[in-house]
Amino acid sequence: MKLKVYTDRMSQPSRAVIIFCKVNGIQFDEILISLAKRQQLAPEFKDINPLGKVPAIVDGRLKLFESHAILIYLSSAFPSVADHWYPNDLSKRAKIHSVLDWHHTNLRPGAAGYVLNSVLAPSLGLPLDPQAASKADKLLTKSLSTLETFWLKGNAKFLLGSNQPSIADLSLVCELTQLQLLDEKDRVRLLSPHKKVEQWIENTRKATMPHFDEVHEILFKAKQRFEKQREMGTVPKPGFQSKM
Amino acid sequence: MKLKVYTDRMSQPSRAVIIFCKVNGIQFDEILISLAKRQQLAPEFKDINPLGKVPAIVDGRLKLFESHAILIYLSSAFPSVADHWYPNDLSKRAKIHSVLDWHHTNLRPGAAGYVLNSVLAPSLGLPLDPQAASKADKLLTKSLSTLETFWLKGNAKFLLGSNQPSIADLSLVCELTQLQLLDEKDRVRLLSPHKKVEQWIENTRKATMPHFDEVHEILFKAKQRFEKQREMGTVPKPGFQSKM
Repeated sequence: MKLKVYTDRMSQPSRAVIIFCKVNGIQFDEILISLAKRQQLAPEFKDINPLGKVPAIVDGRLKLFESHAILIYLSSAFPSVADHWYPNDLSKRAKIHSVLDWHHTNLRPGAAGYVLNSVLAPSLGLPLDPQAASKADKLLTKSLSTLETFWLKGNAKFLLGSNQPSIADLSLVCELTQLQLLDEKDRVRLLSPHKKVEQWIENTRKATMPHFDEVHEILFKAKQRFEKQREMGTVPKPGFQSKM
Repeated sequence: MKLKVYTDRMSQPSRAVIIFCKVNGIQFDEILISLAKRQQLAPEFKDINPLGKVPAIVDGRLKLFESHAILIYLSSAFPSVADHWYPNDLSKRAKIHSVLDWHHTNLRPGAAGYVLNSVLAPSLGLPLDPQAASKADKLLTKSLSTLETFWLKGNAKFLLGSNQPSIADLSLVCELTQLQLLDEKDRVRLLSPHKKVEQWIENTRKATMPHFDEVHEILFKAKQRFEKQREMGTVPKPGFQSKM
């Protein structure tokens, strides 16, 4: 039975899982669970993931959720996946786990918290929360700085001094691409002080093309929609963040 | 060269790593990095973990931090560790990763956020934050309910329907033992609706004795200190949470 991947491409960890499968030639059926339609909470999906989150997979008898766990499982279960994605070497693997754990409590709440509370909330029926956005902004800025000065060492193209991408590169870069939803000036304010981070995002994109752009298409369309709404004054203007 | 473990037993992930080493007969030197004295930010420790967090380990040339990454590495690198802690079976292992990932964004911020903002902050030179405590209370209560109804399935003694503990049991239980620092009535309010959770904490304690109690000794002493302070009226009284 073919692998089933339950996703919404607007969700950053969903994008990471889909790109990973495509890049590594893993055959799968992609099943849309629309977050905008709240399908993740529908009874049919509760049988797949009772906690109501995407991405989730079904592979034979295994039902699994949490994107890092999924990426590790796919790397281990599908022989077509090259070693660099999740190395057999214990020390290299340990460092990848370390980055992924750090991601959970730093980059993820920073990036997702900022985008949700400064731009995305209204389209999910929630109010914008400037105080939460300000807190997330600080965590995101600190996390970007840690990426720039610590995780992206030396002149290597990818995290942890590697010249080939791992699941950590893909997961973290897909987290950061959601910043595309911000006003362009605000996105530049956040990213441009971190030249290595900008180059690393581009390196990861190139290493996973054409799938990277194809899977992100929905996000780029949403970006255009938000830009139009900004012009019409129905979403926060650039710089609202600095007024808080 | 013997494994070096940099910890403060007041930190819940530090306790998990120390108990794990002791239970599995892993020889190690324990080096105290006192959080109260802010030694995690000292230049000497920055060479071990530039991000200034405990626990961290040094094993030969490998420097590693993030407790889940450490527990996975130790399980893989030390042959004395029994399979049930981190099974070779891909599906079982995947489920353990899934619980550990869930822990990062649910139980951990719930438990640690609540204890910090309702009790611990003043002893770290920080103000109590009732609003943050209230938010963490909700996340903790929801997480305990998810543990009770989802992760602790059927009548198994441990997470994921297992009859032997894994690194996930140890990590999550050590997270929850910090609730000992709360006023006893408040701790009972949080835990007592979750009978399976209470039994599972006790099962994990028993499976890792005598090390569990020995490593938690510092926490029990801190609990007594807080109780005394409560009697003297220098820390928040029981039930202050319900007034918010």
